[in-house]
Amino acid sequence: MTMAKIKEIRFSLQEFSYEKPFHITGSIASTCTNILVEMVLENGVVGLGEASPSFRVNGEKPLALVRLQKTVQEMLLNMDVGHYRRIFDQMDAFSRSAPSIKAAVQYAALDSFSQEIGVPVYQILGGAKSSVETDMTVGINTLEQSVADASSIFARGFRTIKIKVGEDLEQDIQRMLAIAESTQGARYVVDANMGYTPKDAVRFAQIMDHHRIAIDIFEQPVRAEDFDGLRFVRQHSVYPIGADESVKTKYDALRLIREGCVDFINIKLMKSGISDALAIVDMVKTAGIGLMIGCMSESPVGITQSVHFACGTGAFTHHDLDSFLLLKDPAQQGRFQHEKTNLFPI
Amino acid sequence: MTMAKIKEIRFSLQEFSYEKPFHITGSIASTCTNILVEMVLENGVVGLGEASPSFRVNGEKPLALVRLQKTVQEMLLNMDVGHYRRIFDQMDAFSRSAPSIKAAVQYAALDSFSQEIGVPVYQILGGAKSSVETDMTVGINTLEQSVADASSIFARGFRTIKIKVGEDLEQDIQRMLAIAESTQGARYVVDANMGYTPKDAVRFAQIMDHHRIAIDIFEQPVRAEDFDGLRFVRQHSVYPIGADESVKTKYDALRLIREGCVDFINIKLMKSGISDALAIVDMVKTAGIGLMIGCMSESPVGITQSVHFACGTGAFTHHDLDSFLLLKDPAQQGRFQHEKTNLFPI
Repeated sequence: MTMAKIKEIRFSLQEFSYEKPFHITGSIASTCTNILVEMVLENGVVGLGEASPSFRVNGEKPLALVRLQKTVQEMLLNMDVGHYRRIFDQMDAFSRSAPSIKAAVQYAALDSFSQEIGVPVYQILGGAKSSVETDMTVGINTLEQSVADASSIFARGFRTIKIKVGEDLEQDIQRMLAIAESTQGARYVVDANMGYTPKDAVRFAQIMDHHRIAIDIFEQPVRAEDFDGLRFVRQHSVYPIGADESVKTKYDALRLIREGCVDFINIKLMKSGISDALAIVDMVKTAGIGLMIGCMSESPVGITQSVHFACGTGAFTHHDLDSFLLLKDPAQQGRFQHEKTNLFPI
Repeated sequence: MTMAKIKEIRFSLQEFSYEKPFHITGSIASTCTNILVEMVLENGVVGLGEASPSFRVNGEKPLALVRLQKTVQEMLLNMDVGHYRRIFDQMDAFSRSAPSIKAAVQYAALDSFSQEIGVPVYQILGGAKSSVETDMTVGINTLEQSVADASSIFARGFRTIKIKVGEDLEQDIQRMLAIAESTQGARYVVDANMGYTPKDAVRFAQIMDHHRIAIDIFEQPVRAEDFDGLRFVRQHSVYPIGADESVKTKYDALRLIREGCVDFINIKLMKSGISDALAIVDMVKTAGIGLMIGCMSESPVGITQSVHFACGTGAFTHHDLDSFLLLKDPAQQGRFQHEKTNLFPI
């Protein structure tokens, strides 16, 4: 069955402001710059995607990425969106140099195909779930402000709270204990964003365990490249250890599995694109490892991608898709509905 | 988007005769019994699948499998075919006990979804290719008959010929050399169906190499469970070694990858169903191993499943989908066209 062909690819820079500065290990951001990708078909259909580049994780810079527009357009011109894997394959060339662009263009192809056939993307991918529940994140801050932020998130109904740690072990311990005290009944995903040494990470986990803190996942305690360190923390901690910065491509995921490094993998479309994310889902489920899905600084257009991916595959126990809640009034709506802590693909 | 729900699942036995008895290591068949699966939706749409059970590989018996009809119907009744992964997940319960039924029902769900949205299955799966080229098989036979069969296949335009070996090493060597002599320019997939010891397999490969026989894949030289034997043959043979009987579930595939046992994996939907086959594709491609797709004794209805799977994923370099050519006038057409050696999904 022949469908409409790609006539044009448009990239445009989109500036967003955070509601308040977002502080994680090694980074404080008050604004972010994303790239809106529009895939224009010969019949006027426009498929949307959004790239939210990360210099810290992927080495990507928005001003360089927008200059790829012409290259991508030349690669995809006249391709039929009814054969989306051929478009995926083309974009795999950017797996390391521009993964957020790969993700946005691959999703724009799915979105175009979805519009052509009148079926939502999450159903093309299998429709395993009809909604997902997201957590919400507390950045690095003073003890008082961290407690206030966590309490407010818990009061809004979020059952899982993501806590950023990794810049100061002793302060992190005090913050975690104070947060746990003031949000009793909550569960936590703790993310060190590579900030600890393996031994400090083990110490952190031991103290948390001593206080019976309900940590579902202890994410990326050590440097991205330190696979041995991840395995060391895993072997000496009661909490499931997750990889985030350590896993970008499907090849990283296979290596983490082979070397027995982690209990969880955090898939972000901005690191892996749709194609590698699909492969990682299958590999990780086969290996019996847990799966969470995260985000960079996507606006609602970008979060749409992860909502449809997560509901389509149904693969994740933990969803950290709150970036759109941290940004000031994004102009464009996404193809999902948001009711309290739940996200529904539409 | 809500679609039609499943109202009924029908299983029916279908008898087929081979054009001539088909002889492989440990088995001679002149007939086969498949199971036609009809998934009837509340709006009258009927999704089709076909199970081609293998007692030798899966321990499956048709008369026992048809008795699963009621159980499967109860599991899937009123499920929405717009959420096919939920149907996949239910059928994973049969991964070991009835994988051909799992495959047929999972495909019937895809076929139903396809009819509901008016998009061929191979495009739902990504539409990577628009056609595939199949090989054709020479069973175990006398030297003279083997040469006649291979010559006839080559004359019909098949560029890759699959040769069954494994019952008698010396006769196999003589047959292979005679076939190669009379089909110069052809390429071969040689399949021992577990018939050799690891050392006999290495000896076979050495002699073939001495005569510069163009073997693309040396399939399943040793017993299914002998992973160490597979790796031994791999390490001592110039030809790519393939696993067939050794890999049924996605868990088998991950173990073969982890243990470095093979260069190729032969996916058959009848061993893995659609769900595990999709996972195996992603894992194997990530690991940099080759992929072929094979069949049991599917009629055109069953071969449809593999044609759409192979074209949708685009994952295979070798396609061994000739069973429908070996059966006498199957009653029902499949959703593919057959032109010489090429199969086109429709």
